[in-house]
Amino acid sequence: MKTHDKIAKVTLVGAGPGDIELITLKGINALKEAKVILYDALVNEELLDLAPSAVKIFVGKRKGFKAFSQEEINQLIVEKAFVYGHVVRLKGGDSFVFGRGYEEIEYVKSFGIPVNVVPGLSSSISVPALAGIPVTHRGTSNSFFVLTAVLADGSLNKEIEVAAQSSATVVVLMGLSKLAEIAEIYTAKGRSEEAIAVITNGSLPSQTSVVGTIRSINAIVKDQTISGPGLIVIGPVVELLKDGHENDYLLKLINN
Amino acid sequence: MKTHDKIAKVTLVGAGPGDIELITLKGINALKEAKVILYDALVNEELLDLAPSAVKIFVGKRKGFKAFSQEEINQLIVEKAFVYGHVVRLKGGDSFVFGRGYEEIEYVKSFGIPVNVVPGLSSSISVPALAGIPVTHRGTSNSFFVLTAVLADGSLNKEIEVAAQSSATVVVLMGLSKLAEIAEIYTAKGRSEEAIAVITNGSLPSQTSVVGTIRSINAIVKDQTISGPGLIVIGPVVELLKDGHENDYLLKLINN
Repeated sequence: MKTHDKIAKVTLVGAGPGDIELITLKGINALKEAKVILYDALVNEELLDLAPSAVKIFVGKRKGFKAFSQEEINQLIVEKAFVYGHVVRLKGGDSFVFGRGYEEIEYVKSFGIPVNVVPGLSSSISVPALAGIPVTHRGTSNSFFVLTAVLADGSLNKEIEVAAQSSATVVVLMGLSKLAEIAEIYTAKGRSEEAIAVITNGSLPSQTSVVGTIRSINAIVKDQTISGPGLIVIGPVVELLKDGHENDYLLKLINN
Repeated sequence: MKTHDKIAKVTLVGAGPGDIELITLKGINALKEAKVILYDALVNEELLDLAPSAVKIFVGKRKGFKAFSQEEINQLIVEKAFVYGHVVRLKGGDSFVFGRGYEEIEYVKSFGIPVNVVPGLSSSISVPALAGIPVTHRGTSNSFFVLTAVLADGSLNKEIEVAAQSSATVVVLMGLSKLAEIAEIYTAKGRSEEAIAVITNGSLPSQTSVVGTIRSINAIVKDQTISGPGLIVIGPVVELLKDGHENDYLLKLINN
């Protein structure tokens, strides 16, 4: 191995929403050059084939695997960069949209290791798009508001109160477990007839979408036994989905 | 030419923020298959080299070029699809983030022409990221709010009032001409010391960033003679830029 192969550096790559072709060319190039890839549960593992000789380490949360703490992941990135050289840290979506990417950067840089950032397609925009919902649409929505439902301590993100007062399209990530609480907040603001969609497995062949109103969505989700890390979209743009936009993907649409 | 080459279809492709490598693999594949490419001013024209034999039509706004209305663009897409087959409509950023992409889809589909959507990296997330600003960061920001400064009629987007009341990171696109008005709104809410960044030419070698507070930013922007389609980021995450994060790109950072 040549010496310069071992110069420690880290590239933080967003893999996009899941479809293997929805990674950027820059992300692909980084993977091809990687000596080590640390990847999460939401990453499409077919991407790892781009780097046949790289060391691959799964650091996500999954049954039967050790659960790494954020601190352990940080340390692992630094350790592998010093031992092997170029480490690619591969995350689902975009690393800076609730991906804790900046925490990892801060840690890595504190060791003097240079970091490059390759943005990825955030699910917050791309998953609604692929389901047929534009987050903005002239005359319908001039803004969008993206938030997680759950804060680090497990409580509901109180920003949903602010979101429910705005005319922005609201996108809630990792919010399916809080759907009833979100609906209560919108109902309290007099918006029980607002259109809402729940999308799971966004961008993958298994993608499903259900559409309803704030009033009806809980029953629909229970009825369809929808689960997993769903994405919620609220606002008049959701009505556009009812017009029957189709993409490459399976669209399970329930008008209500 | 084989008959099946002429089956009308349209792919709406987001080209990303400008760096040629920040398009998706799916976008590249669509360009390679295109018979006609209709592209905007914010698209990196090097991408057109991916389709050497395609007909390329510039439909953006630029001195010395005919300015196409949205209606004319819509008609052109349909006309070219029927004459040539596969049309790629290539837009800067993501087509559904203030890109009027959905309007084009609706028009095209009304002729029975199938449309595929290939999301692109939205500048709203990727440009701050490349300038060293994560739109979310645990403990600092749990949400982000994206809006245009100017509505279709030229007036200020009143949603900025709602944004200024939230603790979300606020990203304003195409807002440099309204910077003084935005600062007034924040000042009226008692947030004159809030951190704000203005980024121009995001993701390109010519990228520049300036950082200040709501109170100081107008003077800084005038002093640096910054102009063009700048992106504005407001919120505590902007403070992280002051810690000196660097990417591949030129970073012109003014602490204030």
